[in-house]
Amino acid sequence: MSEGLTHLDAQGRAVMVDVTGKAETDRTAVAKGRIRMSPETLRAIRSGTAAKGDVLAVARIAGIMAVKRTPELIPLCHPLPLGKCAVDFRLLDETGEVEAVCAVSLRGRTGVEMEALTGVTVALLTVYDMCKAIDKRMELGGIHLAKKTGGKSGDFYNDPEYAEDGGDA
Amino acid sequence: MSEGLTHLDAQGRAVMVDVTGKAETDRTAVAKGRIRMSPETLRAIRSGTAAKGDVLAVARIAGIMAVKRTPELIPLCHPLPLGKCAVDFRLLDETGEVEAVCAVSLRGRTGVEMEALTGVTVALLTVYDMCKAIDKRMELGGIHLAKKTGGKSGDFYNDPEYAEDGGDA
Amino acid sequence: MSEGLTHLDAQGRAVMVDVTGKAETDRTAVAKGRIRMSPETLRAIRSGTAAKGDVLAVARIAGIMAVKRTPELIPLCHPLPLGKCAVDFRLLDETGEVEAVCAVSLRGRTGVEMEALTGVTVALLTVYDMCKAIDKRMELGGIHLAKKTGGKSGDFYNDPEYAEDGGDA
Amino acid sequence: MSEGLTHLDAQGRAVMVDVTGKAETDRTAVAKGRIRMSPETLRAIRSGTAAKGDVLAVARIAGIMAVKRTPELIPLCHPLPLGKCAVDFRLLDETGEVEAVCAVSLRGRTGVEMEALTGVTVALLTVYDMCKAIDKRMELGGIHLAKKTGGKSGDFYNDPEYAEDGGDA
Amino acid sequence: MSEGLTHLDAQGRAVMVDVTGKAETDRTAVAKGRIRMSPETLRAIRSGTAAKGDVLAVARIAGIMAVKRTPELIPLCHPLPLGKCAVDFRLLDETGEVEAVCAVSLRGRTGVEMEALTGVTVALLTVYDMCKAIDKRMELGGIHLAKKTGGKSGDFYNDPEYAEDGGDA
Amino acid sequence: MSEGLTHLDAQGRAVMVDVTGKAETDRTAVAKGRIRMSPETLRAIRSGTAAKGDVLAVARIAGIMAVKRTPELIPLCHPLPLGKCAVDFRLLDETGEVEAVCAVSLRGRTGVEMEALTGVTVALLTVYDMCKAIDKRMELGGIHLAKKTGGKSGDFYNDPEYAEDGGDA
Repeated sequence: MSEGLTHLDAQGRAVMVDVTGKAETDRTAVAKGRIRMSPETLRAIRSGTAAKGDVLAVARIAGIMAVKRTPELIPLCHPLPLGKCAVDFRLLDETGEVEAVCAVSLRGRTGVEMEALTGVTVALLTVYDMCKAIDKRMELGGIHLAKKTGGKSGDFYNDPEYAEDGGDA
Repeated sequence: MSEGLTHLDAQGRAVMVDVTGKAETDRTAVAKGRIRMSPETLRAIRSGTAAKGDVLAVARIAGIMAVKRTPELIPLCHPLPLGKCAVDFRLLDETGEVEAVCAVSLRGRTGVEMEALTGVTVALLTVYDMCKAIDKRMELGGIHLAKKTGGKSGDFYNDPEYAEDGGDA
Repeated sequence: MSEGLTHLDAQGRAVMVDVTGKAETDRTAVAKGRIRMSPETLRAIRSGTAAKGDVLAVARIAGIMAVKRTPELIPLCHPLPLGKCAVDFRLLDETGEVEAVCAVSLRGRTGVEMEALTGVTVALLTVYDMCKAIDKRMELGGIHLAKKTGGKSGDFYNDPEYAEDGGDA
Repeated sequence: MSEGLTHLDAQGRAVMVDVTGKAETDRTAVAKGRIRMSPETLRAIRSGTAAKGDVLAVARIAGIMAVKRTPELIPLCHPLPLGKCAVDFRLLDETGEVEAVCAVSLRGRTGVEMEALTGVTVALLTVYDMCKAIDKRMELGGIHLAKKTGGKSGDFYNDPEYAEDGGDA
Repeated sequence: MSEGLTHLDAQGRAVMVDVTGKAETDRTAVAKGRIRMSPETLRAIRSGTAAKGDVLAVARIAGIMAVKRTPELIPLCHPLPLGKCAVDFRLLDETGEVEAVCAVSLRGRTGVEMEALTGVTVALLTVYDMCKAIDKRMELGGIHLAKKTGGKSGDFYNDPEYAEDGGDA
Repeated sequence: MSEGLTHLDAQGRAVMVDVTGKAETDRTAVAKGRIRMSPETLRAIRSGTAAKGDVLAVARIAGIMAVKRTPELIPLCHPLPLGKCAVDFRLLDETGEVEAVCAVSLRGRTGVEMEALTGVTVALLTVYDMCKAIDKRMELGGIHLAKKTGGKSGDFYNDPEYAEDGGDA
């Protein structure tokens, strides 16, 4: 039985669900994820950051561009008139990780969760690509939807950083 | 100092590195990753699998198609004449996870690690998309390069499943 | 003289026509088409359907994803905020054919005929691709716009299945 | 049982088949198809052809560009280093049809049947798009692989125009 | 200090700016550019124009299709529901140039300057591609935004052809 | 008469020319171009460069990614297995310009002139996009093929910077 899986119809077949009748409202989503690496790799990124910033600058652009391509990648996602998109990073020395945060917003008929998750993920894959010559054992993890606002199903908070009152997506 | 980061030139600027002079050899890469979910979500996928298989069938196709688009997503990746691509899944009831495995091979001048990692990741994001109506707290993790063969830097094993003697990618 | 061909301007040059001033209304389109094959090929698809469904599951996803790429393929089509998309199949044993039906809807300023036709066509081409190892003589045919609703030019019915009162696209 | 369907593995799952070990040989494919229309529509295309040629010029470009995007549209197709691509048209007054012919060739590890079929189909869809303001009842049909040379499975002829000795693809 | 550069945030990081709260208004943009070539090349284009028109017909389609892909090419551009797009050419014998003009309009939340500039540029690059066998010294220049209407920042005129009262974009 | 225009066949129709029989050789191309702007805009870019480098870092990535998409943009270009790609910039204070240089190389059957020209152009368009909030009168110009090596037609030099003995592409 596959009720609840809205991307499957009554016969269990994939379908791009109908959003025609839904209201256009302001919607936001924030996703987060991390890539764990060796201390030397993190140092290389940081020193690069100090000098020219290219690893994270490239990963940021890759994430933003991937957000726009979400409906080409995720088969049942709708093409959407995105309003804003930002990708940011934090270097977490204590855990040897880079954290990526992607925030997306639009005024439209369906949400942007997949866009935010895709942006985080491609940004992290780009960090992997640019550092893999010195470290092939990096691992991506903790990729989750941190926050979502707008839409019929109401707001959603799924991250210690976001209290019920929100914060700025 | 950014030596070691081969995607940055001597001035720290991003560059698509020269593979023109490298030999065409057979190369393979296998990447793995997981998505953790509630028991009900896993049950919905499993029962869908028994009936029609659509969640995983859709995610498999999404992963394979994403492999082909890797150079469009990851800024400094080379376009490559891919030879084979497969995506597979395991349902891990004890941990409440779906594991995705993506294997890619080609005869060419550079490796396919990023292709395998991209395939795993987009397959998992598609699972998220298709199940998010019943579970928004799913989390992607453990995304890593499990194995790599061929090329100048030699074979590489980074997963309990793959001994030094390899296995079949 | 090329009047009537709205994609050509007064000098016969191609142009993406202006829809800026058109009203946003609910629009739907349904297209159909068939692929004719040998009885063994149809049996292989059917038995695959019984077991895992992959030929038609893959073709369905290919069709849905192609719908979203219509403006990249058809030079003078507008990019559109699609609201719904579904692709379905019928196995016609008496004629040795698989029929594909693609239904698309949106609230927007122009129609989705080309989207529905593109979805049907790419779904059928995917069936060809997946079966061509056993049958290269398959033929696609009967690809037509079956129904269209909404928009200034009024509703349109072009298929025995759709009476003037419509049905559910 | 799905043997014979090489795009499905032993468990019936979709896979992009391995061509890594196949030899690079010269390969060609020619596909054909038609779009049937009212006499007035055919006249409009013909007079456009005499004057500026835009309907068929646009359709030709659309077909050639679609050939290059085949692996993005057909899920299990390999990306290929195409060597040549041409799309041509014949106006068939007696049947009220436009026929499209697409010829593709490459030196590579797998064939270009799907590329030729995709080129024909998108060219015909573009004719539909450019004429639909005067005729929505046009129908695409007769889309088939006419000829194929090169590769392990040998040459293949499936069209009255091509004798066993070939012709010029 | 990077104020004024709205694509950079307060820390100088790239961001796709928020247009969610902006009003949907009618907007137009016209861009122009030229390619300078040898007299023989210009003659070849002109005689081609007389006979079949293919160089400019192909360049026109390339420009229109590129307009639709602007957000895939320009990292921080928004995906937009384009309303109209036209590309046209003038042969300037006195200077040995082809001039391209691209006009784009939409009803939306942000402007289409980049779309018009991208359309002009890709149209000119296509002319280069089609003529490079006879002339590799062609040069693209004079690519500028000629006119822009609609939006909060008001109308903008930057070309002798457009007086303050506008003209027809 | 359209001889010399190799992208047109004997009847003046567009065609992707046959490179199947051409030898795989090492080939390079370098293209250059400039964008002229107000002194304040150039200052904003320079100070951005000193601090974070984002305008040029973003434009560099946009250029590299566009190089890979050349066959999607330029209708008759072949898809190619690119070997290397770099985009670089010079700030020319005396003329108030940013110069972009794009170098591409591959081992393959046809040249990469269009790739280099496309990379330069999209990089410059991205500079325009990121600075247009402070300066809409910027103008792109001087976009030319500076150098080309390899292939049957021999080496080609078209820029003061490159003597007959070459230099490093």
